[in-house]
Amino acid sequence: MIIMRKGATEDDIAGVVTDIKSHGLGVDVSKGEIRTVIGIIGDETRISATHLETLPGVKEVRLVETPYKLINREYSALFDGKTESRVVKVGKIRIGGDQPVYIAGPCAIEGKQQLMQIAAEVKGAGAHILRGGVFKPRTSVHSFQGLGSNPDEARQALEWLKEAGEKYNMPVITEIRGESHVELVSEYADILQIGSRNMYDQDLLIAAAKTRKPVLLKRHFGASIEEFLSFAEYIAASGNKNIILCERGIVPVGKGKSYTRYTLDLQAIPVVQKETYLPILVDPSHAAGRRDLIMTMSMASIVAGASGLEIEVHYNAKEAKCDGQQMITAKELAKLIEQCNLLHQNLLLFRKENRAGECIN
Amino acid sequence: MIIMRKGATEDDIAGVVTDIKSHGLGVDVSKGEIRTVIGIIGDETRISATHLETLPGVKEVRLVETPYKLINREYSALFDGKTESRVVKVGKIRIGGDQPVYIAGPCAIEGKQQLMQIAAEVKGAGAHILRGGVFKPRTSVHSFQGLGSNPDEARQALEWLKEAGEKYNMPVITEIRGESHVELVSEYADILQIGSRNMYDQDLLIAAAKTRKPVLLKRHFGASIEEFLSFAEYIAASGNKNIILCERGIVPVGKGKSYTRYTLDLQAIPVVQKETYLPILVDPSHAAGRRDLIMTMSMASIVAGASGLEIEVHYNAKEAKCDGQQMITAKELAKLIEQCNLLHQNLLLFRKENRAGECIN
Amino acid sequence: MIIMRKGATEDDIAGVVTDIKSHGLGVDVSKGEIRTVIGIIGDETRISATHLETLPGVKEVRLVETPYKLINREYSALFDGKTESRVVKVGKIRIGGDQPVYIAGPCAIEGKQQLMQIAAEVKGAGAHILRGGVFKPRTSVHSFQGLGSNPDEARQALEWLKEAGEKYNMPVITEIRGESHVELVSEYADILQIGSRNMYDQDLLIAAAKTRKPVLLKRHFGASIEEFLSFAEYIAASGNKNIILCERGIVPVGKGKSYTRYTLDLQAIPVVQKETYLPILVDPSHAAGRRDLIMTMSMASIVAGASGLEIEVHYNAKEAKCDGQQMITAKELAKLIEQCNLLHQNLLLFRKENRAGECIN
Amino acid sequence: MIIMRKGATEDDIAGVVTDIKSHGLGVDVSKGEIRTVIGIIGDETRISATHLETLPGVKEVRLVETPYKLINREYSALFDGKTESRVVKVGKIRIGGDQPVYIAGPCAIEGKQQLMQIAAEVKGAGAHILRGGVFKPRTSVHSFQGLGSNPDEARQALEWLKEAGEKYNMPVITEIRGESHVELVSEYADILQIGSRNMYDQDLLIAAAKTRKPVLLKRHFGASIEEFLSFAEYIAASGNKNIILCERGIVPVGKGKSYTRYTLDLQAIPVVQKETYLPILVDPSHAAGRRDLIMTMSMASIVAGASGLEIEVHYNAKEAKCDGQQMITAKELAKLIEQCNLLHQNLLLFRKENRAGECIN
Repeated sequence: MIIMRKGATEDDIAGVVTDIKSHGLGVDVSKGEIRTVIGIIGDETRISATHLETLPGVKEVRLVETPYKLINREYSALFDGKTESRVVKVGKIRIGGDQPVYIAGPCAIEGKQQLMQIAAEVKGAGAHILRGGVFKPRTSVHSFQGLGSNPDEARQALEWLKEAGEKYNMPVITEIRGESHVELVSEYADILQIGSRNMYDQDLLIAAAKTRKPVLLKRHFGASIEEFLSFAEYIAASGNKNIILCERGIVPVGKGKSYTRYTLDLQAIPVVQKETYLPILVDPSHAAGRRDLIMTMSMASIVAGASGLEIEVHYNAKEAKCDGQQMITAKELAKLIEQCNLLHQNLLLFRKENRAGECIN
Repeated sequence: MIIMRKGATEDDIAGVVTDIKSHGLGVDVSKGEIRTVIGIIGDETRISATHLETLPGVKEVRLVETPYKLINREYSALFDGKTESRVVKVGKIRIGGDQPVYIAGPCAIEGKQQLMQIAAEVKGAGAHILRGGVFKPRTSVHSFQGLGSNPDEARQALEWLKEAGEKYNMPVITEIRGESHVELVSEYADILQIGSRNMYDQDLLIAAAKTRKPVLLKRHFGASIEEFLSFAEYIAASGNKNIILCERGIVPVGKGKSYTRYTLDLQAIPVVQKETYLPILVDPSHAAGRRDLIMTMSMASIVAGASGLEIEVHYNAKEAKCDGQQMITAKELAKLIEQCNLLHQNLLLFRKENRAGECIN
Repeated sequence: MIIMRKGATEDDIAGVVTDIKSHGLGVDVSKGEIRTVIGIIGDETRISATHLETLPGVKEVRLVETPYKLINREYSALFDGKTESRVVKVGKIRIGGDQPVYIAGPCAIEGKQQLMQIAAEVKGAGAHILRGGVFKPRTSVHSFQGLGSNPDEARQALEWLKEAGEKYNMPVITEIRGESHVELVSEYADILQIGSRNMYDQDLLIAAAKTRKPVLLKRHFGASIEEFLSFAEYIAASGNKNIILCERGIVPVGKGKSYTRYTLDLQAIPVVQKETYLPILVDPSHAAGRRDLIMTMSMASIVAGASGLEIEVHYNAKEAKCDGQQMITAKELAKLIEQCNLLHQNLLLFRKENRAGECIN
Repeated sequence: MIIMRKGATEDDIAGVVTDIKSHGLGVDVSKGEIRTVIGIIGDETRISATHLETLPGVKEVRLVETPYKLINREYSALFDGKTESRVVKVGKIRIGGDQPVYIAGPCAIEGKQQLMQIAAEVKGAGAHILRGGVFKPRTSVHSFQGLGSNPDEARQALEWLKEAGEKYNMPVITEIRGESHVELVSEYADILQIGSRNMYDQDLLIAAAKTRKPVLLKRHFGASIEEFLSFAEYIAASGNKNIILCERGIVPVGKGKSYTRYTLDLQAIPVVQKETYLPILVDPSHAAGRRDLIMTMSMASIVAGASGLEIEVHYNAKEAKCDGQQMITAKELAKLIEQCNLLHQNLLLFRKENRAGECIN
C-alpha cells in the first residue's frame, strides 16, 4: 500500500501507477477525501519499498497489508478522516446506534397464519425487525429447504413477509442463498441476509451489495475473523457499506461432545469493533442449538457490546419445520429483551463514567 | 426412509405418501430399478416406524439416515442393484477407470502465450486434461481475481482455453465461482470446477448440475467428509451424477506453525470410496502450498487409491500471478507422472493378488 | 451402567458383579447413600441389557453412559439424592457460592519485592485469592520457565508466596506442572492449579487429588467439554471432589488471523453448570492474550454465570517476564471487580425473579 | 539468538552474556563443535540487535527464532557442521536407517498367554520391535487402564514383555504415562513411549529423557507441527537426542461425521524431515480407528517417507480389552510388511535416480 501525500497531484498518482505496472503488477487506487492510497495487486516482493518511497508525492509505503481496508477503522481514518462507528439505518431502526436492536421471527415461513401470529407476538415482545426464512440453506438436500424451493410459493411467502412487516410496522429480513434469489427477494425484504454457509460466495456477496440494500452477513462456522472481514470487504468493494455483521458460532474443538451446536465467539464482538466501524450482532439461537442457553448467552452478548440479537421464535417449537429445539416463545423473548435492555443501560453508564480512558477498555 | 417391497404397487406407494403427509411431513420418492425408497422430509420423530411398517407394500423402515443417498454406494445397491464404482467420461478420458488421470495447467490464465506454452508442455509431460483459472475465488477482494473480472476478457480467456485444449487434444476444466458464470463457462469447458470456498454454495451446485456437464467438486477446507458428500448430493439431486470429488486439504489444527497451507487428508480417499461410487482426485498443490512436497504427496495420494491428481504448473513460478510458490515445471510434472504411474501399476498388481478378500483392505 | 433397586442386598450386588465378570468384563461398583450403581469396564456389547435386567435387585440398565459420573449432576442425584451445586471452601473464601471470587496476581513470581507489591495492590483492589507462578509450563523449553527451574529458588518462591498470602490475608494458588512438584507445592499452596497444557496428564491429576487440597483444573485449549469433564473425573475418582474448573480459551478456527490468542467459550459456563455440580471460573487474560479485551470479557463471563475470574496483574507490564501484553494494573482490576460485582447483583436479582421456571433458563 | 564467530573467545562469550543480563534477560549458551550460539530468554524486544552486533566476537544476531533448535536440522549444521539424518539404534535395529522398522503388538498386555502368542506371531510376520501397553492413557477413568493400574500386576506385565522380547529377539517398547512410571518401566523397556495425550507433559518428557533410553514421542491430536517439535525439544534439552517421532492423527475438522477417529497428516512426514534430523514413524491404527484403512494408509505412509510403522495386532480383535475395532491379525501384518517393503524399495530407487536434485523433492 502506497500512501500519497495530501497535496499529491494526479500526475504524481499516475507516475506511481505506471511504475508499479512496469513491474508486472496490478494497482487499486482508492481516493479518499483526505488522501489517495494505492494498493498493489500481485506479488509485492517484486518491487522495493525503498524505491517506491523516492517517487514524487509518496508519503509512506506499507508492504504488509490487511485484506480488508474499505471497512477498516484505521484505513477509514486515513482516507476520510472518519473514525466513528457506522449506524446502518433501516426505516426508523438504527443498527449500531444507542440501543440494541432485536431481530426475531420463525426460522422458516411455513404458512401465512404461522407468520402473522409470530409477527404479532414478537412485536408485542419488543422486537424491532421481523425475520422469516424462505430459501433455507441446509446441509442435506433432503431436508426441508423452505417454501422457496417452489417458485410460486417463494413469491407468496415473500408477500406474506412484507405484509406482516407492514401490518406490525417492522422492517423485514430474509435470506438469499443464490444469486438468482437476489432480484426477487430485494423486491420484498428491507435487509438481505447471507447465511453462514454462504459467507464464502463472493458472487452472492457482490450481487447482494449491488441492490444497495443493507446486507446482514453471518460468519461462516469455520472462518477466522480475518476471513469474515475479508468477505465483508467484497460487499464494501461493490459500493455498499450498509453492512451488518453477525456472529453465530464456530465449530467446536476437540474429540467428544461439546453439548452445543457451535462455539459462540464473544471475543469477536470487541475485536470486530476495533478492526472495523461496522455494527455486529449475535445470533445465540444457532450457536447453542438448544433453547436453554439462549437467555444466558443473549445477556452475555449484550454485555460484550453486541449491537443487537437475532433470535428464532415459534409459538410451538415441536411443530417447527426446522431447528425446533432452539426456538423460544415470544413470552420468553419479552423477558429476554427486558433483561438485555437493562444490562445495556448499565453498560452505557459504565462506558460514560470511564469515557476518559481511565479503564483498560 | 421407507424401503418398499420389490412388488409394491403404485397404490402402495401413494398410500405411504399420503400417510406421511397427513403427519405434516414432506416426502421424497426415489424409484430405482429394483425398488422404491421413500424419504421423509422434516422432523421424523412425529411419526412412528412401527406404524409405517404396517402399511401395505412396506418392507422396512430406517429412521436414522444419511444426508446423502443418491451418491451412496450402499443405497445405490438397494435402489438399482449397482455396486460398481462410477467412471466419469470426458471425451476419451475416463476418470475413475483403470488409469490415474492427470489434470495440469496454470493456476490462472494470464495470456494466450502463457496458456499455449503451458498446454504444450503439460501435454508433453503426460497430462490428460488442461486446467486454467478464469474466475479466481480469492480471500481478498484486492487480490488478482483472474481475467474473468473483466467480462470481455472472461470470454477471451475461455476461448484461448478451448483453443489450447483442441490444439493439444485435451479436454479442459475451469472454475465457476458464481451462478452467473455457469452459462458462459459451459459453452467452453468440458468439466466445471467448483472450488473449495464455494463448496457450500448450494445454488451454484444446482446450476452447475443442470448443465449436464461433469462437475469437479473440491472439499471445503473446513468441511467434514459427511458435509463434503452432503453437498455433492445437491448435484446428484439435480439429476447429474457425473461428479468428480477432489481432496485439497483442510485447515491445520493447533497453535503455531503447520509449515503447510492445509492438512492433506489422505484417509478421505478410501473413506469416500467406501461411502460413494464416485471417483476422487487429490490436489497436492493447494494442500501443501509449497512445491517441495508435491512429488512426495502425489506418490502417497496414488498409493492411497486416488483416481488422479490436479496439479498447478507454470514455466516460471516467479512470474505467476497467483500461488507461484506451489507451481512446478512441466519437466517435474513428467517425472511425477512417470513415478505415479509406476506406483499405480504396483497397486493394481497388489489388489489383483488380494482380490479374494484375503487382505484387510 | 446397572442401577440397583433401593433395597438391593449385598448378595444381589455380588450376583451382578459375578455375572458381568463371567463375560470377561471388569466392574466398578459405586455405593451411594440411596442406591448402588455398577459400571461395566470394557466392551459393553459383549453383554445383553435384557439379560442383566432379569438379575435380582436390578432396577434399570443403561448401556450408553458418560465418561464422567462422579462429578455429574444427574448421577449425583441418583447416588446420593444431592442436586445442589458444590461450594469449594478455601479458608473463608467460598468458590461457587453467592459471590464471585477473584483470583489475581502476577503470571510468574519474579522476586520477593515484585510479589509483595502486587499482593498488596490486588488485595486493595478487592481480590480474594493470590496467584503466582513458580513452575511455568511453556511451549518452548528455551523460554523462561519460572523460578521453579532451580530447586532452591523453587522453595524460596513458594515461601514468598505463602508469606504474601498470610500478610495480606489471602489464600494462595500456584501451578504444579509435574508429579514431582506436588509434595513441595502442597506444603505452601492452598489450591493446586493444573494448567491448560497439563489437563491431559492423568497421573498429575491423580497425584494432585491425593493431597486432598482443592484443585483448579484449566481446560486444555484443544479439548471438548466432554474431554474436560472426563479428566476432571480423574480427580474425583481419586477421592477428591474439591475441584474448581476454569475456562481459558480454545484454539481459534480457520485460516488467517483471529486477533486473540484463543477463543473464549462462554457457552461452556452454563453447559458445565448443567452437566456437573462443580464451580467454573473464567481466565480472560490467557484467552485474549491482550489487555484491551479483559474488562469486556470479564463482564460477559460474570453475566454468563461464572463463579469468578482469574486475572493476571502486574504493576509494570513491560517488565513482566512472561505474558506482559495481557497484564492489567491493580487500579484497572479494582474497576473490573466493582463493575463485575454490580453485574452479578443484577444477575442474582434476575434469577430470583425468575426462580419459578418462568424463563427459558 | 546470537551466533558467535568461529574464533570467539571465552571472554567474548562472557561479555555478551553479561550484556544481555544487564537488560534483565536470561541467557542460554549452546557450545557446538564449530561455534557457540547464545539464546536470549525473555522479552527480546528489550534489547537491540544492532547493539548486540557491535560486541566483540559476535557474527550475527537473529531475533526471531524457532522454539526448537537442538533438534533443528539447520541449527545442527550451524553448531556442529552435521547435516545428516539421525539413526536411533535399539540393539541391532536402526530406526531412521535404510529400511522401514515395524513395531507391532497388542494395544494392552492382557495376560502372559496373550502376549507370548502375539509376540510369536508378529515376529513371524516380520516385525522388528514388540509393543504392549501396561499403563494405558484413557479419556475415561472408568475405562480399562491396563494392568499397570495395579502395582503388582504392573511389574508382572513388564516382566512378561521383557521375556517375550528376549524369547523372540525383539527390543520392546511400552508407554509411560506419569513420572512415577519412568523408573520401573526403564528397568524393562528398550524404548519409552509417550502417548498422544501426554505430549504436553513437560516433566514427563524430561524424566524420560534422563533415563538415556530412546524415547518415542507421539504427536498430540490437537498439536501443530511446531508444537510437536517444541515438545520434542524438551527431551533434547535434557541431554537425550535419541528421539523417535510418531504421527498418529489429529482431530478432524468441521461439523458431522469424519468416518475416522483422527485425520492422518502425512504431509507431516516430509515437513518433519526437513525441519529436524530425527526419524518419524506413523501409527495408522490409532489414526483410522478402523482396521479396513490400515493397509492403504500404511502403504501411503511408507511412500511419504516414514521410517517405519507402529501397528496394533491381536489374534482375536473381538476379545481385545481396548481398541478392538482397529486391530489387525498377524497374517494381515505379514502381507502389510511385504507390500510396504516392496514400495520402500521402489522409493529408494526413485530417490537414487533423482539424487542430483533433478526433481522437486
